[in-house]
Amino acid sequence: MGRAIVREPALFLMDEPLSNLDAKLRVQMRAEISRLQRHLGVATLFVTHDQTEAMTLGDRIAIMRGGVLQQLDTPQAVYDAPLNLFVAEFIGSPAMNLYEGHLSEDQLHLGGQTIALPTAVFEERPRLERYDRVVVGIRPEHLKTPSGEDNSSLVGEVNLVEALGSDAIVHFTIDAPRVHTEAAVSGPATGEEIELAAGKLAVAGEGVARVEPAAFAVGEKVRFLIDPRQLYFFDPSTGLAI
Amino acid sequence: MGRAIVREPALFLMDEPLSNLDAKLRVQMRAEISRLQRHLGVATLFVTHDQTEAMTLGDRIAIMRGGVLQQLDTPQAVYDAPLNLFVAEFIGSPAMNLYEGHLSEDQLHLGGQTIALPTAVFEERPRLERYDRVVVGIRPEHLKTPSGEDNSSLVGEVNLVEALGSDAIVHFTIDAPRVHTEAAVSGPATGEEIELAAGKLAVAGEGVARVEPAAFAVGEKVRFLIDPRQLYFFDPSTGLAI
Repeated sequence: MGRAIVREPALFLMDEPLSNLDAKLRVQMRAEISRLQRHLGVATLFVTHDQTEAMTLGDRIAIMRGGVLQQLDTPQAVYDAPLNLFVAEFIGSPAMNLYEGHLSEDQLHLGGQTIALPTAVFEERPRLERYDRVVVGIRPEHLKTPSGEDNSSLVGEVNLVEALGSDAIVHFTIDAPRVHTEAAVSGPATGEEIELAAGKLAVAGEGVARVEPAAFAVGEKVRFLIDPRQLYFFDPSTGLAI
Repeated sequence: MGRAIVREPALFLMDEPLSNLDAKLRVQMRAEISRLQRHLGVATLFVTHDQTEAMTLGDRIAIMRGGVLQQLDTPQAVYDAPLNLFVAEFIGSPAMNLYEGHLSEDQLHLGGQTIALPTAVFEERPRLERYDRVVVGIRPEHLKTPSGEDNSSLVGEVNLVEALGSDAIVHFTIDAPRVHTEAAVSGPATGEEIELAAGKLAVAGEGVARVEPAAFAVGEKVRFLIDPRQLYFFDPSTGLAI
């Protein structure tokens, strides 16, 4: 980098410069590169497969898939309003949970579970009323626990708990069909983006929640509280956000 | 791994198996290895420099430094009660902020700033009263914002904001001497663990906070609320927890 800086270029091109560093050093160097870039004031194109690097370093992120631009926006905008399923599943760690859902009136059905949708959800997404089948996205950090019984909660069975100290990642199985996209696999996409044909989907899906550290036992039932306004909705045939 | 499994060993030894994977795959494989280990029920020794892997995979973590065991405990216990500065700075991401502090009566002085310590802090750490000079640890996730003026707040100046979507990492400078240990550098320690000689410390230290996403401008003053009971205290001469 020193050699590149002294030449005073108009643009820096960095291709996964941090991928061979160990975890602690990667986080330090990430902040260092960000400070250096702001100090030098030189536009920088930084290529990475690490969505945390993309989020933290980018003023704007261009998300590519098989050579095709999927979305170009600020990190927060990409996180808050991903344009399609690929972006939704790629940005955010742990990745967004995606399920096949059915709408009837103001009810959202995920497998055997029902979530009441307040009118605000439809007001914010006028096109949602036209849909019967949708793909529903739930970010792991939007699943809250503990909670009492509620219209907007989701029940799952714990199958793995990863403690991070400040929080915990709970992996659970849930009676709702999980939607698989190619987003989790790096490199060009080869298959169908959305496998929604009934035969390809297991009845029980998987989910991930990021919650406060607490005692969860594997095999235990957990009830997660959801704010329906934090749900994401996608068109199951095009994968585009509704 | 398949080859190792069919031999039905009494113990698996894994030496940084995930270090060459990209970020998304590393997180997936981490959960996969954890599930596999629980399924097989075979004791596994997993060596890693990645403290997130250590936290999430380990039933117990042994933290080594230059071949010497520093602490052996459950992930949550190591996070909640690190035995010394090395462990404190190594476990947790972003790393704990460490400052040189002075105690006078029930006041903690960090550079020009003062934090009132409630009696509970001394009740939980009876030996703390004997100290004048201490090293104070503050986890990034324990710095809250926004907050009003308060006896237990810390003022810093923002120098970098890393947005993660669900939360943001705020890097700030603060009028308090930062303590540097060797923990952040992987590999055997070579120098002095704690550089507390006044000449070696800059007057302004650095700090990291993990907070809710919000608008922070670089150069802006921020006030972080602290719960004094969440502070960590270490002996500045030995580096051991008080």
